[in-house]
Amino acid sequence: MFEVTLVGTGGMMPLKDRHLSSMICRFKTKNILFDCGEGTQISLQKIGWGFKSIDVICITHFHADHVSGLPGLLHAINHSGREEELIIAGPVGLKKIVESLLIIARGLSFPIKYLEIESEENSITIGELTIKSLLLEHRVPCLAYKIETHRQGKFDIELAKALNIPKQFYSELQKGNEIIHEEKRYTPNMVLGTPRKGFKIVFCTDTRPIEEIVQFAEYADLFICEGIYADDDKLEKAKEYKHMLFSEAAHLAKKANVKELWLTHYSPSLSNPEDFIENARDIFENSHTGFDGKSTVLKYEKT
Amino acid sequence: MFEVTLVGTGGMMPLKDRHLSSMICRFKTKNILFDCGEGTQISLQKIGWGFKSIDVICITHFHADHVSGLPGLLHAINHSGREEELIIAGPVGLKKIVESLLIIARGLSFPIKYLEIESEENSITIGELTIKSLLLEHRVPCLAYKIETHRQGKFDIELAKALNIPKQFYSELQKGNEIIHEEKRYTPNMVLGTPRKGFKIVFCTDTRPIEEIVQFAEYADLFICEGIYADDDKLEKAKEYKHMLFSEAAHLAKKANVKELWLTHYSPSLSNPEDFIENARDIFENSHTGFDGKSTVLKYEKT
Repeated sequence: MFEVTLVGTGGMMPLKDRHLSSMICRFKTKNILFDCGEGTQISLQKIGWGFKSIDVICITHFHADHVSGLPGLLHAINHSGREEELIIAGPVGLKKIVESLLIIARGLSFPIKYLEIESEENSITIGELTIKSLLLEHRVPCLAYKIETHRQGKFDIELAKALNIPKQFYSELQKGNEIIHEEKRYTPNMVLGTPRKGFKIVFCTDTRPIEEIVQFAEYADLFICEGIYADDDKLEKAKEYKHMLFSEAAHLAKKANVKELWLTHYSPSLSNPEDFIENARDIFENSHTGFDGKSTVLKYEKT
Repeated sequence: MFEVTLVGTGGMMPLKDRHLSSMICRFKTKNILFDCGEGTQISLQKIGWGFKSIDVICITHFHADHVSGLPGLLHAINHSGREEELIIAGPVGLKKIVESLLIIARGLSFPIKYLEIESEENSITIGELTIKSLLLEHRVPCLAYKIETHRQGKFDIELAKALNIPKQFYSELQKGNEIIHEEKRYTPNMVLGTPRKGFKIVFCTDTRPIEEIVQFAEYADLFICEGIYADDDKLEKAKEYKHMLFSEAAHLAKKANVKELWLTHYSPSLSNPEDFIENARDIFENSHTGFDGKSTVLKYEKT
């Protein structure tokens, strides 16, 4: 199962009841955090997630509302006694920005590995997860991220029996591990079918609704996308600041054939996004407003 | 009247219900913020204070929990449309640190004036307030701050009458302004007695309980002081990390003859400081635990 939780859903400025836009997900033992604006360490505590075991932090871009919580979070992770390497990924310039912020959090007990994503060809593999990115259209270089899980083919028990593979190895072969036993070699491809559809989750903020997002988010199980303004009459403002409207996010969701859309990164002036959800649902029915702490658990379909 | 509010009372790491140690005060139209850890802009919203009109931000030192909220707060102030200069004061190195943090909040619409406090002789005068500082004993250079108000002498109405000063000028003279009317000159010292005792508030964190604090805080109306650990059995830890215990803060309060002590900057491990208040009260009776949002309004004594 794949757990996704919105840590915060505010854009530009945190409000007392709406922290800055951030998302965390967990798959098996791996924890990936997306964006880290001011207060993210507080929001993580509020939603009951620890931060000691975060494996990767993916930063979309270097505006304060997406990155200013890094020194505090790294300081808190340090305080938890972590020693293992932490990966931080982001657009080119990442190392300089983070090291500049770390002027107030020196002497961390764990190493940081910086991954500056120069092209969309770069991807991050962590456990059974792959993280890919897409260059968006914002006022500064900004990346959308897509997390995909690899799901192996179905275990063919009849085939395993026919091949006289001892039962005690079924589980390891199912996990993808090779077995050598009594000079015989059993490999997963002997008993596993073609890979099945894994999970696909996209985190997409801040940007204008460019066409490339459609392909990037195609058939995603969950498309988390900014909707800074609810009303279409804010289109000019959205264009000026390179953001998007509820309706624009919904159009992307529809074109990309995603299963579900969660809106996030609201303007501080938008007090109650839920009042405007129809602006998205009229276009893409399975649209939902994100809120701090909104969470879901995705499960593989039985195939 | 002089309004003092604790914005946050946590040390090292914010908790979901306890933001990082910070204090704000207002006297007439002037607003002074002391420290600005991560989330200060959220805590200020929670306690109902705006941040557009902050005149001075005094930073005690450059550990993350005291300064990491600056980029976000300045970004939010910027968003409010401020154009007036903002003063930021702190230990030597301030400009370099703040500019390093501002890598993620470029293009502010208002100028910043940096005051690097090189010696305790430096003081800041803002309106009728004077802010003085004291070098503390922490792991890095760290300053306590003392805010004092200037209170003029009492207006001697009988004397004003005897000097035939027209009644319409009483108010201006009382405010300390000189009047020239029909070729006559009326000065405040003609009708005001010797200056009266103003307010004195001290904000003192992070430090060992050095003797210099006693003199610095002498007769303060309010002594806001760190008490990172409640129990005396944490003395060695307090010494190692250069902090102080409830009892040490209380000893300082007693020796300095302050009116009232508020404890703040608690360790994240100290869940309920109030359970331990007797550790301070046994030494100095008018000791109180600070909490986020604790507030008081001081009024001049009638003299």
